[in-house]
Parts: sequence; structure tokens; C-alpha cells
Amino acid sequence: MSSSYSNYTNSPCAACKFLRRKCTSDCVFAPYFPPEEPLKFANVHRIFGASNVSKILHEVAPHQREDAVNSLAYEAEARLKDPVYGCVGAISVLQREVLRLQRELEETNVDLMRYDSFLGGETSAYGGRRG
Amino acid sequence: MSSSYSNYTNSPCAACKFLRRKCTSDCVFAPYFPPEEPLKFANVHRIFGASNVSKILHEVAPHQREDAVNSLAYEAEARLKDPVYGCVGAISVLQREVLRLQRELEETNVDLMRYDSFLGGETSAYGGRRG
Repeated sequence: MSSSYSNYTNSPCAACKFLRRKCTSDCVFAPYFPPEEPLKFANVHRIFGASNVSKILHEVAPHQREDAVNSLAYEAEARLKDPVYGCVGAISVLQREVLRLQRELEETNVDLMRYDSFLGGETSAYGGRRG
Repeated sequence: MSSSYSNYTNSPCAACKFLRRKCTSDCVFAPYFPPEEPLKFANVHRIFGASNVSKILHEVAPHQREDAVNSLAYEAEARLKDPVYGCVGAISVLQREVLRLQRELEETNVDLMRYDSFLGGETSAYGGRRG
């Protein structure tokens, strides 16, 4: 649970402040949207809508809510930066990087096997790696 | 543009059918939510809300809208499958895979360099690769 949760009695959470409503002790947003991070809520609200975020929070177990909010905030920020691809753009980049590294590793293993056959297997401790 | 777009005169698009509204010739959803794929719209509506999807579509250039809808549909499906991490879970898995492959490649290059020094550089064509 965020250390900022204890602040809800002093100041409404970022969500309630944004939505101009009273922040009660059972506010589902308060533990994850502290007043000092107004942009975090503004972003998820803009992309998912407060009602959908609230639904997701109620769907997941309390101990998973912080992770859920952080992943929603990450997705929202990515979508605001790149309205066309959002964080799916990052997935494409990473998938290409995995393929590039797999090819590179494959080629390096071929080189190792060439060395091995060049040495007639006398240094078999240096056998090719397979990912 | 999706081939299904031409169908809008016969049947409302999946979005208009879901939202029970008239599907007009200038419907922003129609080209990307054909009536035969009702789940695609239901998913993005459930996660982002029709109004936010419409806002995003109006924000991006017409030639990028299909990519935008497909990435939103991918994100929505991932969030419905995994309400805690959504497609950020896939990003974490891919980031770990990139790190694992980088380490593996690093180790394989160390092996190649050992071979190289064992052979006294006489087969320099087999020099270590660097990613």
C-alpha cells in the first residue's frame, strides 16, 4: 500500500480531486492515486475513464491493485505519447529485438561449431550454446 | 480501409449495433469495426469506453486509424485476459527475454574469444560478434 494512503484524511486523493467529489475512507482510488501525483490519475482517466479503472480495481484482489494501477498508468502514458500504437509499439520493438538477438546467437553458435570442427573436437569444453 | 466498410449501408457497424444507434455514412467506427466482429468493439468499449476510442480516432490521421484500432483491440484483449498487468505483462516477459539473450550472446562471445586466443589468432575470420 502506498505511503501516501495515510494522507487521504488531510487531502482528497488525486482521483477525487480531479472528479470534484468527496474522498471517503473507503475510496478505491485513494491508496493508488496520492494527491501529489495528479497526472497519474489524469492520464488513466483520459485513456480508460475513471469508471473503467474503478471496475478493474474492484475485479482484482486488493494486493494486486497497486500493480494494476501502475500497469494502467504505464499504458495510459504510452498511449498519450503515441496515440496510434501506445505500448503495443514497445511490444513490436521488443519482439524485433528478440528476433535480432536470436539470429545473432544462432550465427555465433555456428561460428563456435566451425571452431570446434577446425580443432577436431579437442576443446569440446567450448561446445556451442543453444538459447 | 477494411473491405467490410462497404457493408455499412446494409448493416450497422459493430460499434453502432452495440451502442444501439444509427450507423451513418460518416461513422468514425464503421471502417474499423465491421458487424461480423462484434467482440472487437465490445472489448475496446469495455476497457477504454466508446467515447475515448472515438477521441483517439479523431486525434490520429485517417491512414493511421486502422493501426490505432488494432493496437487498442490488442491492449483491450490483453487487459481482459490479465486484469492486473494487461499487455504490460507481455512487455515484462519480452524485456526479460532480451536480457537473457544478451547475457547468452555475451557468454558465447567470451567462448569465441577463448577459442581465438587458444588458436593464437590464426583464424581471425572467426572473430567474436558484438550485438
